[in-house]
Amino acid sequence: MSTADSARPLRADARRNHDRLLEVADTVFAERGVAATSDEIARAAGVGIGTVFRHFPTKEALLTAVYQARLQRLAGRAAELATADDPGAAFFDYFRAVVEQYGQKAAIADALVEAGVDVRAEAGGFRFRDAFEVLLRRAQEAGAVRRDIGVPELIALLVGATRAVEHADTEPVRARTVAIVLDGLRASASHA
Amino acid sequence: MSTADSARPLRADARRNHDRLLEVADTVFAERGVAATSDEIARAAGVGIGTVFRHFPTKEALLTAVYQARLQRLAGRAAELATADDPGAAFFDYFRAVVEQYGQKAAIADALVEAGVDVRAEAGGFRFRDAFEVLLRRAQEAGAVRRDIGVPELIALLVGATRAVEHADTEPVRARTVAIVLDGLRASASHA
Repeated sequence: MSTADSARPLRADARRNHDRLLEVADTVFAERGVAATSDEIARAAGVGIGTVFRHFPTKEALLTAVYQARLQRLAGRAAELATADDPGAAFFDYFRAVVEQYGQKAAIADALVEAGVDVRAEAGGFRFRDAFEVLLRRAQEAGAVRRDIGVPELIALLVGATRAVEHADTEPVRARTVAIVLDGLRASASHA
Repeated sequence: MSTADSARPLRADARRNHDRLLEVADTVFAERGVAATSDEIARAAGVGIGTVFRHFPTKEALLTAVYQARLQRLAGRAAELATADDPGAAFFDYFRAVVEQYGQKAAIADALVEAGVDVRAEAGGFRFRDAFEVLLRRAQEAGAVRRDIGVPELIALLVGATRAVEHADTEPVRARTVAIVLDGLRASASHA
């Protein structure tokens, strides 16, 4: 019992360090791109490189962990929004969140594929398609989103909006570009 | 005078052959991709390979000519639509036409860049940006398109819509995907 007791705070501490490193790595990758090194992340976190390697033995392990954490956040958000009081707002919020995340997520996924990591397996079965299916249906039933579209149109628009955002130079242009796509999805916009 | 007279029908005939080859090449490249050979194009046009080479000594010359012809068509269409009676319909028609053409045009442009051809120079100064600027302003003045956007948002959406269409599996999905973007651009869709 005394062993377990003395181990517990250490484990909690290790978990906190792990989570904090992950958070710092997420920010550093977002700001400097996936080429950022474990050394840069150690410095940003104010720890030695040894601490980073203890938690994430390779750069790929770190990237994979960041990738999984992002997918988990998006999956968690989808689960939360699936029972939201305002299904229209929930749907539009999620569309925006996925577009915001997508560019960075894609860069990490590309780097992982290049390093020979099976990204699909690491995604843990989370599929945007499934998350969106629920949010879309609820938003359509609530009269917030046009009924003449399904998941295929939505996924195509998501890919398109992501690419459009990458092509926009400034934040206001990006915001207006996404707003146009969202407005086009509203039930009131349907000219069909 | 007799020389000029006898030469004239021949030149007109050569011009017709040239135009017909270009038209056939356009179709063949669209159907089979830019990897289609001059030989395939000769067969599709029902002429000998010698005739193709007389007009277009290399595959690059043929691709360049097809590329220029497509840009000229788009430029011509923009010029026509710039004075159309219904500026809203003109704008939406053009957006659709550019999205339809874009995928193929991009494939040809890529092949030309790979062959070392200066695509920008071959475009003859035609810029979608300029063509769209006029059509957008007129459509906004006519109250058909929302006033809170400019050419930067439009170009971003054009790139996005093109990518979205590439990602859509079937023609109905493609049509609905573009319709959503167009509906989002309408003045009535603005939630700003």
